[in-house]
Amino acid sequence: MNDHLTAAQRAEIDDLRASPSQTLRATAPGAEKHLYVPHPVLDHGLVRMVDYMGDDAAICQAARVSYGRGTKSVQNDEGLVRYLMRHWHSTPFEMCELKLHVKLPVFVARQWIRHRTANVNEYSARYSILNREFYIPRPEDLAAQSTTNNQGRAEALSGDEAQRVLDWLREDSMRAYDHYEAMISDDGQQGLARELARMNLPVNIYTEWYWKVDLHNLFHFLRLRADAHAQHEIRVYADAICRMVQDWVPAAYRAFEDYRLNAVSFSGPAMACLQRILAGEAVDQESSGMGAREWREFQAALGRA
Amino acid sequence: MNDHLTAAQRAEIDDLRASPSQTLRATAPGAEKHLYVPHPVLDHGLVRMVDYMGDDAAICQAARVSYGRGTKSVQNDEGLVRYLMRHWHSTPFEMCELKLHVKLPVFVARQWIRHRTANVNEYSARYSILNREFYIPRPEDLAAQSTTNNQGRAEALSGDEAQRVLDWLREDSMRAYDHYEAMISDDGQQGLARELARMNLPVNIYTEWYWKVDLHNLFHFLRLRADAHAQHEIRVYADAICRMVQDWVPAAYRAFEDYRLNAVSFSGPAMACLQRILAGEAVDQESSGMGAREWREFQAALGRA
Amino acid sequence: MNDHLTAAQRAEIDDLRASPSQTLRATAPGAEKHLYVPHPVLDHGLVRMVDYMGDDAAICQAARVSYGRGTKSVQNDEGLVRYLMRHWHSTPFEMCELKLHVKLPVFVARQWIRHRTANVNEYSARYSILNREFYIPRPEDLAAQSTTNNQGRAEALSGDEAQRVLDWLREDSMRAYDHYEAMISDDGQQGLARELARMNLPVNIYTEWYWKVDLHNLFHFLRLRADAHAQHEIRVYADAICRMVQDWVPAAYRAFEDYRLNAVSFSGPAMACLQRILAGEAVDQESSGMGAREWREFQAALGRA
Amino acid sequence: MNDHLTAAQRAEIDDLRASPSQTLRATAPGAEKHLYVPHPVLDHGLVRMVDYMGDDAAICQAARVSYGRGTKSVQNDEGLVRYLMRHWHSTPFEMCELKLHVKLPVFVARQWIRHRTANVNEYSARYSILNREFYIPRPEDLAAQSTTNNQGRAEALSGDEAQRVLDWLREDSMRAYDHYEAMISDDGQQGLARELARMNLPVNIYTEWYWKVDLHNLFHFLRLRADAHAQHEIRVYADAICRMVQDWVPAAYRAFEDYRLNAVSFSGPAMACLQRILAGEAVDQESSGMGAREWREFQAALGRA
Repeated sequence: MNDHLTAAQRAEIDDLRASPSQTLRATAPGAEKHLYVPHPVLDHGLVRMVDYMGDDAAICQAARVSYGRGTKSVQNDEGLVRYLMRHWHSTPFEMCELKLHVKLPVFVARQWIRHRTANVNEYSARYSILNREFYIPRPEDLAAQSTTNNQGRAEALSGDEAQRVLDWLREDSMRAYDHYEAMISDDGQQGLARELARMNLPVNIYTEWYWKVDLHNLFHFLRLRADAHAQHEIRVYADAICRMVQDWVPAAYRAFEDYRLNAVSFSGPAMACLQRILAGEAVDQESSGMGAREWREFQAALGRA
Repeated sequence: MNDHLTAAQRAEIDDLRASPSQTLRATAPGAEKHLYVPHPVLDHGLVRMVDYMGDDAAICQAARVSYGRGTKSVQNDEGLVRYLMRHWHSTPFEMCELKLHVKLPVFVARQWIRHRTANVNEYSARYSILNREFYIPRPEDLAAQSTTNNQGRAEALSGDEAQRVLDWLREDSMRAYDHYEAMISDDGQQGLARELARMNLPVNIYTEWYWKVDLHNLFHFLRLRADAHAQHEIRVYADAICRMVQDWVPAAYRAFEDYRLNAVSFSGPAMACLQRILAGEAVDQESSGMGAREWREFQAALGRA
Repeated sequence: MNDHLTAAQRAEIDDLRASPSQTLRATAPGAEKHLYVPHPVLDHGLVRMVDYMGDDAAICQAARVSYGRGTKSVQNDEGLVRYLMRHWHSTPFEMCELKLHVKLPVFVARQWIRHRTANVNEYSARYSILNREFYIPRPEDLAAQSTTNNQGRAEALSGDEAQRVLDWLREDSMRAYDHYEAMISDDGQQGLARELARMNLPVNIYTEWYWKVDLHNLFHFLRLRADAHAQHEIRVYADAICRMVQDWVPAAYRAFEDYRLNAVSFSGPAMACLQRILAGEAVDQESSGMGAREWREFQAALGRA
Repeated sequence: MNDHLTAAQRAEIDDLRASPSQTLRATAPGAEKHLYVPHPVLDHGLVRMVDYMGDDAAICQAARVSYGRGTKSVQNDEGLVRYLMRHWHSTPFEMCELKLHVKLPVFVARQWIRHRTANVNEYSARYSILNREFYIPRPEDLAAQSTTNNQGRAEALSGDEAQRVLDWLREDSMRAYDHYEAMISDDGQQGLARELARMNLPVNIYTEWYWKVDLHNLFHFLRLRADAHAQHEIRVYADAICRMVQDWVPAAYRAFEDYRLNAVSFSGPAMACLQRILAGEAVDQESSGMGAREWREFQAALGRA
């Protein structure tokens, strides 16, 4: 099994999973099975749940400011959770919290950190020595630049071109790491400060962090990063997290899927068009008042693309 | 026993405390004993721990970005926690989280909410009817306005004056609530909307909320609100929370006491004075370069007040 | 003219408006005309713009990380602003900032402060004495409790009932303030501390604060508070702010109106229904898979209510 | 003059500086002279003020919630600003805001972004092509790893070793960029997506962003990053910003220097020691109750190191 761990790391994790405790806190069986278990992502990355607070009932408990669990019935609770999500009540979802350990390439970390409402402790390359681990895409993930969308990808590169890219990525990563090691070595020389030597390393090197976030802000992160427009290399992390959240708070996750992930927002002008269409009028882009790009997006949403 | 609860609320709490679960999460025995138990504050208020995430070891685990518990030894861990606190490393403390249920007068809630980095769900007076519960101070807490500090209190009022104040507070509260009830009644009338009727109620009425915060921001709250300059009516809540935190994360709490709660900050000019004093020079306010008030604060910190 | 100011306040404002300076910063003519001018809200409240940073071009400048103004053409800029709003790019809008001075009833302030991503300085009732100013609704704003929506209003109260309510609100406010004054008086007595005496005052008393917020978070505030579901007493403030923002950053405001204020979000199940309807199928609630309430909201959005 | 700009950029900046407007807003003459002007940092970096909101008087205006400028007298205002800083009143300082344009190496950006309470728009390497600009330290900045502090630097490397490091940094940067260009080229091939090709680039490449922050959070940033323990490569940016802030809000900056930058915090145990020393007792580490490292820090603070 390749779970991207050393034997020592695996032993530490096995140890944690073998040591249950008694608690009076709200406990989510679907989350317990994920605790500490690494989910491999990309070629050397991983994401694993390290701790969680709350469950579906805790959302209702806070919304009702109740003295007990706050549950009336499972059906009743799911109705409340869906109502809260549909009407943009964010604070009850903030009452659940998730803590993850993530190993990820630096360029993915740089996108991820833009979500500011979260807590982060990252492995310090000032203090410690980084490992020789770099993200090298699979050939099928080496996508060409999109010609219609500056921020997008087209189909995969052809075999020759792909091979050239892979060779460069591998060779440049290895050489950069060789020099990094040589710079910090104190064998027969002073040895460069770690905080300086790391500047030679490319952004496909792996870093690690603990990341803690409340469920409302996590849903916001997932809406943007589990989306078709997100870069593939962050999306695979978001997808892995989605599967954990689905097991942890199933009712909240269903509401999130229905009202956020699969929802479509129509602008004021688009709603006017829609009402005209429903009234039987034939509307085209010109008569819609929308720009060309917006009109295409509108048609796609209606399944008419 | 007066724990400020109805029998139904007490039963709900007893039920929660009687239902332990198994968990693989980090568990803090000192916190478990507090879970759900109401700590009475003021005449009708309370604060109780509803959930927690993490323990002393979790602070170290995040600081070390480790795969296992992150503990090397208890002594080693306490040393790291103290180092982190002393050198203002805030992110490892953010990895612990506390959820409280608080019942408190509205004017206390208004001070509390100024701490923005927290999650809040408050009982809604638009949606629900408030209870007839008002904070009426004990006679010994009826302090006179300080004549030297616009924001401070002096000694307690004399008996007659205190009695007059208590009578007004009680009578005005009761009358305001009588009219609130009469306004929202639909008996023989339409009944005013709740969101409007509540405006007749004074700010000594009790409200309730769920409040969730990470340990770093909680320490910041406690440093300001468990302080001698905080208003007595919020300080008693902070004091009650301090006792919970002390049981939950004892090493972090000791570091907080030493490096924050009992610490003194000397300005650049004050440090220059201190070095002159230690060199045997006799320094007075005039030669200190400090203002009168700042000099008094400096002398007090040195135990020379 | 009743602008809710004393003569001294008006003189201070006139003085500020009479003292232009030269600046190299981005300047928005539509904002300049609002600076310092109080817009009366409710019976004694006001909102006025005290400072602003940025304009429509500053949004584009930041999005393009440009060295100059960042403007290519006005038309081009408006297109970019609309694209950013449509695709949920929030950070460029955060590059504009607004500072307001607001005078508002305490119960409105309590709703307002729940928007945490903003900066606030409130008039301190610990330090200073509050004024005898209370919000007393106009008779036409005394709405009955809605019987279908726990959090809503129905039609206005009848004349007799309205009169009774108004009398209570006025009398209770005045009596509470009389006692507040009597408690803090040091005439022949010690005088109760201000921080205690204020607890006798009802939440329709006016307070004041400086409130500073970036444009992204302001739009979020306005979407929730300029909405038909917001309480009337906060909505009138949001409406007044909308008019200022419209003059300050007209392109951003138009995008906000189209893509947020007047937008409708359809859930995944609702989109499936919509596509069935567009395909000619007759869908009713039962076959829609939606709940009764959600179906009503869906029909209303389609203009079929 | 080498200001790290192209001619086109310089022309855009000259254009902005040549176009003053009239404004009624608070204007800070000391800030105006900095507006748009690039301050070179490191070998290709820069920081420049793009906009500001508020001045020293605005801090007082907010603290007093005043209708006019809020100034009583310049001396009076400075006293209030110092009082607010000394007593940890943070909200009045949040009423000033600064917007910067920064060009900085990616590894510096990664430290900087850990300050979350700020707004950021970064140049997008998904959307755009990065420039061939890399940070290569001056030989005197090539410090050896400290042997006593895992996170610190010792003296500069010797000439031979330094030369070896510089050669590697230069050659690896150039080769990485050559391959980056070759990968994205669509000359005779498909051309790799930009969002993928950038992963080959080392973290000493320069990026750019707009960064906007309030004065309270800026002071927090400067306290940590203009400190002797900060990495040299971020400290030079903090130092440059300090000089701007000093010109913009001179009274607030003086208070910041005295009560934050040059202040020393003594723990509870340290205060007990200090009082014993002042009472004439001879205290050494053993009798102090402090650890060895903490005792050294204590002695250093007292000027006895």
